[in-house]
Amino acid sequence: MGPGPSTVPARILQAISAPTLGHLDPQYIEYMDETCEMIRQVYRTQNALTFPVSGTGMAGMETILVNLLEPGDEAIVMINGVFGGRMKDNMERCGATVHAVEIPWGKSFSLDQFAEAVAAHPKAKMLGVVHAETSTGALQDLGGVGDLLHDAGMLFAVDAVTSLGGHDVRVDQWGIDAIYSGTQKCLSCPPGLSPVSFSDRAIERMEARSTKSRSWYLDVSMLKNYYTGGGGRAYHHTAPINMVYALREALAIVLEEGLDARIARHREMHELLRDGLQKLGLCYIPDHSLCTLNCVTVPEGVDEAAIRRRLLDEFDIEIGGGLGVFAGKAWRIGLMGESASQKNILTLLAALEACL
Amino acid sequence: MGPGPSTVPARILQAISAPTLGHLDPQYIEYMDETCEMIRQVYRTQNALTFPVSGTGMAGMETILVNLLEPGDEAIVMINGVFGGRMKDNMERCGATVHAVEIPWGKSFSLDQFAEAVAAHPKAKMLGVVHAETSTGALQDLGGVGDLLHDAGMLFAVDAVTSLGGHDVRVDQWGIDAIYSGTQKCLSCPPGLSPVSFSDRAIERMEARSTKSRSWYLDVSMLKNYYTGGGGRAYHHTAPINMVYALREALAIVLEEGLDARIARHREMHELLRDGLQKLGLCYIPDHSLCTLNCVTVPEGVDEAAIRRRLLDEFDIEIGGGLGVFAGKAWRIGLMGESASQKNILTLLAALEACL
Repeated sequence: MGPGPSTVPARILQAISAPTLGHLDPQYIEYMDETCEMIRQVYRTQNALTFPVSGTGMAGMETILVNLLEPGDEAIVMINGVFGGRMKDNMERCGATVHAVEIPWGKSFSLDQFAEAVAAHPKAKMLGVVHAETSTGALQDLGGVGDLLHDAGMLFAVDAVTSLGGHDVRVDQWGIDAIYSGTQKCLSCPPGLSPVSFSDRAIERMEARSTKSRSWYLDVSMLKNYYTGGGGRAYHHTAPINMVYALREALAIVLEEGLDARIARHREMHELLRDGLQKLGLCYIPDHSLCTLNCVTVPEGVDEAAIRRRLLDEFDIEIGGGLGVFAGKAWRIGLMGESASQKNILTLLAALEACL
Repeated sequence: MGPGPSTVPARILQAISAPTLGHLDPQYIEYMDETCEMIRQVYRTQNALTFPVSGTGMAGMETILVNLLEPGDEAIVMINGVFGGRMKDNMERCGATVHAVEIPWGKSFSLDQFAEAVAAHPKAKMLGVVHAETSTGALQDLGGVGDLLHDAGMLFAVDAVTSLGGHDVRVDQWGIDAIYSGTQKCLSCPPGLSPVSFSDRAIERMEARSTKSRSWYLDVSMLKNYYTGGGGRAYHHTAPINMVYALREALAIVLEEGLDARIARHREMHELLRDGLQKLGLCYIPDHSLCTLNCVTVPEGVDEAAIRRRLLDEFDIEIGGGLGVFAGKAWRIGLMGESASQKNILTLLAALEACL
């Protein structure tokens, strides 16, 4: 019940241990195609260029940015926590000039704030924002942002690491051009892959680059030949075969439950937890909280690390501490995928009560 | 029996399916430390900065290069196959001016050729070479190269993807400053991690950089706080937990067999295969062949892809086709880790005879 990895169901642990096929074996290519198709379904997109990057969530962030940005480009990044800040660092490493719009941690951006950022930096090629800030528990409403950006000729890049599979993520409807997530949060798969998706608009901009991507490993101009079947499935690098088995099973579980039902379950579990935490006198930090990550203030005079340690040692429950400006001041309680269950919540509430 | 992934032993498939711990869980940190210590043993190094990169072998290559090179640097790369060429591409993406020394595919470099390269490009910061060229099956002798480079003030970077765990790799004795490998070759682990190691000399040069690494995901200046315990195990990214379980088990198996015994087994199996292939009239392409990858010419008039397909469909054996200039002209037969067995070799020879 930390900020991830979440609990991995036995079916997925069974799937990950299947014999390792070759990365060009026709049977494996079939599994990979099925995996990409299911990623499309959970992202609610028709984007052809949708695949799992061979690295954890942060490799997904880097994949989006190294392929869309090059030296001379301008980019806007909205920062309200650790991961917006990382996006800025990453954009700068791509050689872009970055305009950061910062608000206090825990707050979310209004549509007006997006409009102001676009008006202030009309030459920006891209705007990046975090849908679910894992460091603060804030949910960002993305409605209307895509139209605003497209009218200004900008690309819309989104971090969905802590939302995919737990909150609604509507890539096509919201006009998202590039998005990444992780497997170990609301998909309840072990960490090791990052599902990404690029719109045709994004592909056009990538094809118009005048320099190579700064990363060879994450260069989509080569990866797309392997993942989308163009160019005869050309070998690029050896994919993490067993991790793909795991992700395929995890996505199958998500779709068996049904995306809408799964999102509703995350909301119900969040409400149950919120109710209990408030009865214990704990206050939520963000105005607009995620269901999947619940960030609350540690009461005055409480040694937060000691309590986390006791929860782990005595009750076998992991919760997260604060990150960045919230270090030592917050707890982060995950309700992600398999972990978002009534039993977990009731146990945690009882254990927390005992510790406090 | 292709160029990798090799057959994964059941013990490793069992290990990979253990419940997913948190990446900051003390138990997991212990597993990770054990894994790093075993990587040191198979690399025969005392280097503190030795860890598994969270990506496949090519992410290891990129880790070495993005951390050691920056714009304005010069670098030398020795090219005798696909992977030397990739190293060149990668070095250029780091902003370095690259001097390539090319010889025909299948050949290996003499110590004189290294000396000439160093003399011709005295300002180079690094020389990169592939120990085991997976595209041609050529083994590169590395003896004496380290001294030559260090006398000239250069760093020695090595690709050991297809040698680690099958051929002798002596990082400290050979004066290697930066090295990477993959898990899915002679370690017989699923693909997904890349064991790397950096010498103190390499760390000094990294600390003297004037720009940030072009990759955030692979930035060793941040990763070392997590992997070597400095800075209180600071969170950087979520490590691929279950893959680390698998690598830990794979390394334990290597060390139980014993490095010397394992290397001797690869040599014996190579001799058995070579003998049989020659009796079938097949000729080795490289002068100085790897034991772990056997690259032979396809006889005139034979449809090589059809034979590979038949081996897979009728005999359940995978071998590799040629890469690059050898596409359609060569077969690549792996004898890596678990796959390097008498039973496999006898079955393949009989099957190949039937197909030819």
